[in-house]
Amino acid sequence: MFSSILIANRGEIALRVARTCRELGIRTIAVCSDSDRDSAVTRFADECVRIGPAPARHSYLNAAAIVTAALQTGADAVHPGYGFLSEDPDFAEICEAEGLTFIGPPAELLARLGDKARAREIAQAAGLPVLPGSSESLTTLEQARSVASEIGYPVILKATAGGGGRGMTVVRAPRDLPLAWAQARASAQAVFGDPRLYIERYLDNARHVEVQVLGDGRGGVLHLGERDCSVQRRRQKLVEETPAPGLPRELADRICAAAVRAASQVDYAGAGTYEFLVDDDGGFTFMEVNCRIQVEHPVTELVTGVDLVREQLRVAAGDGLSITQDDIAPRGVSIECRVNAEDPNRGFMPTPGAIEVFQPPSGPFVRVDTHGYPGFRVTADYDPLLAKVAVWAPDRRQAIERADRALEEFRVSGRGVRTTRDYLREVLADATFRAAKHTTSLVDDMAVHRPTLRTA
Amino acid sequence: MFSSILIANRGEIALRVARTCRELGIRTIAVCSDSDRDSAVTRFADECVRIGPAPARHSYLNAAAIVTAALQTGADAVHPGYGFLSEDPDFAEICEAEGLTFIGPPAELLARLGDKARAREIAQAAGLPVLPGSSESLTTLEQARSVASEIGYPVILKATAGGGGRGMTVVRAPRDLPLAWAQARASAQAVFGDPRLYIERYLDNARHVEVQVLGDGRGGVLHLGERDCSVQRRRQKLVEETPAPGLPRELADRICAAAVRAASQVDYAGAGTYEFLVDDDGGFTFMEVNCRIQVEHPVTELVTGVDLVREQLRVAAGDGLSITQDDIAPRGVSIECRVNAEDPNRGFMPTPGAIEVFQPPSGPFVRVDTHGYPGFRVTADYDPLLAKVAVWAPDRRQAIERADRALEEFRVSGRGVRTTRDYLREVLADATFRAAKHTTSLVDDMAVHRPTLRTA
Repeated sequence: MFSSILIANRGEIALRVARTCRELGIRTIAVCSDSDRDSAVTRFADECVRIGPAPARHSYLNAAAIVTAALQTGADAVHPGYGFLSEDPDFAEICEAEGLTFIGPPAELLARLGDKARAREIAQAAGLPVLPGSSESLTTLEQARSVASEIGYPVILKATAGGGGRGMTVVRAPRDLPLAWAQARASAQAVFGDPRLYIERYLDNARHVEVQVLGDGRGGVLHLGERDCSVQRRRQKLVEETPAPGLPRELADRICAAAVRAASQVDYAGAGTYEFLVDDDGGFTFMEVNCRIQVEHPVTELVTGVDLVREQLRVAAGDGLSITQDDIAPRGVSIECRVNAEDPNRGFMPTPGAIEVFQPPSGPFVRVDTHGYPGFRVTADYDPLLAKVAVWAPDRRQAIERADRALEEFRVSGRGVRTTRDYLREVLADATFRAAKHTTSLVDDMAVHRPTLRTA
Repeated sequence: MFSSILIANRGEIALRVARTCRELGIRTIAVCSDSDRDSAVTRFADECVRIGPAPARHSYLNAAAIVTAALQTGADAVHPGYGFLSEDPDFAEICEAEGLTFIGPPAELLARLGDKARAREIAQAAGLPVLPGSSESLTTLEQARSVASEIGYPVILKATAGGGGRGMTVVRAPRDLPLAWAQARASAQAVFGDPRLYIERYLDNARHVEVQVLGDGRGGVLHLGERDCSVQRRRQKLVEETPAPGLPRELADRICAAAVRAASQVDYAGAGTYEFLVDDDGGFTFMEVNCRIQVEHPVTELVTGVDLVREQLRVAAGDGLSITQDDIAPRGVSIECRVNAEDPNRGFMPTPGAIEVFQPPSGPFVRVDTHGYPGFRVTADYDPLLAKVAVWAPDRRQAIERADRALEEFRVSGRGVRTTRDYLREVLADATFRAAKHTTSLVDDMAVHRPTLRTA
């Protein structure tokens, strides 16, 4: 096992990774931007290196600064967390070239699966159903028009270099295509530095179901069940749970098996997530692969008892997985709610400010992953995630009751800071959600019924 | 199910009970002494009644004040927590006479099992092995001398009305008996209002192993596995775990079966704990029954997934247990560490004071039960328990590593306040503990090797 690891991330996930390292006796090296210098992980880690000012491109996206910090502190390996450089093949390659183990799939695989149009092709070749769409990236409007009319509207334009729910535009009619095309290309260029797009049929009423896989990098792949992440606002997940509610077990098992098949074909290494859409008729189609630890991984940990970060470290260190598929026996139900520093009554605007009171919930079957603390400053520099409140219970009804109890007892206050806590409680109380009949349109439907929640 | 419950307790257990009530939609009524009026449970509960000044006899032991509060607030039932009135048959009887459901075994059973000499007889009649000792309470020194010489020294004098590790005196030689007898009787009278004593053979190197049972009150009893609570200082538990380490599974199963047999014979109702001593040779003997939820119940909850308080409420409400023995499939290992506001370097003196920084650990597989918060005042009025840090892991080694990580990240500071956090980390690091070869003498043995830890 490694003797020291640099954690190339911030916020709750940096702390999450550091905790497992500490348990394994691994020295932890945090990095931080100037505005994060008093963060929870900088206090927790054995060492911390300041790598630049707040905009991520000067710090958490600065591969050279991070690799330099790793070399200077004698790190053996780099854990990239999620977001930032976690799926960047160049970063993985630089790490390896400098003798640092990148904790994730090899650069070559990141490149293949990170090209979302190509990942779609690879999945299709492995026998996974995909939505009708373009078989490769498109570069001209003419190509787009032709593919769209062939598969039929509505369609969705996706950035080839995108992922994580960003860089997507729904087009409902041919006349909307030209403008949408231009906007989506510009946006893809701005956000991902790559204007290429691909097109797929768009499903209005689908569930987002994803499968957690672990690969040993030698063709051995196992899954840890599925997660439903249909509660989304602007394609950002708000509530996640496992097992997927209202999905026949037989269908869920087939989706899990499909993910394992696809991951085996690429000799997947480490933790990954295969994302699918499930339509009204129980058909499922592949969307994309996330080649990293996922924000919502705690729900899988709570039902399986597997420490996913520990398995990532083992695979990267060459120790292989500590478990086999037969060891995975999920128990009960877990739900995670993402508490963001946003104001649901003001269109989910970020609410930067200084937190004074910060008392996360605890007690039976509650897990909180957070970098918050009394005195913590929420800045507008980063995503608004403040805490993940995850609960476990023997069944879904109890899990919902417990999640609601946990959210209710979460006390956060401070000048200017608002959170989505009460909004999440509305989701948990929603009749469609309780009946497990919700799709990715739940949040929009809720907004129709409560117009004060401006989702625009 | 009840619509409202009064919680006749304080501290972390009052909050623990309130959390389950909240999840079940039950209105919670807290009670508090004057010095507890800003406590966590008074903030959490739907209502709170002040029942008197700080010494417990004027508040948490004042049955009349508590029952009056329950009647005035329209409570259906009373949950007594642990300690205080939780095993008081008179309190249970008053509740029932006033139309309040007492959440625990019936008064008559509390009386029978609360008389520790009688409980020993009942267990023996149910076929449980007991240590050689007096078959009933003794009232004269002459009786004591005769019994002690018959069973052989060392012996232990125990208060008939005692329990929970209090009111015990070890006597190593006949010449020490007269003084010990006089002191133990005076102490039993002072602490429990009842001078009666009984005698048992004393084992120097034994493990404390106890079995969690749940009874439906109609003869149906199941067990949720055993806990090892051998890490004790002055018979107060410091670290508890399940399953019992270093105990052959076959022996543990026999102990669990013995507890179920004994509990079935008395139609046990609700949650209870049968305590045993296990000697070097694998012999086990019954000690006592605790007719209430136990401080260390979280470790059992973490491996079984059962909410024990919820089961207590169900049985008291006449709904029966939600589970059968076949549903109980313990997974992995759980360890709980009791963080007390005491100074291990000053003979574990209580350290009252005002807490400024209070940041309990969290993250993967960590559960904290605490009533502490920033600004909380530790007083000398109550027991020094500040937080229970419990962890879960697939095996004992990982559980120890995780518990150590969790303790390390627990930040508590404030004027005058010291905690046992670092002392608990020494226990976790102890070679005998790690090898699971420890007995109830572990803490004394550690003191020999580190004399700065004054246990006197």
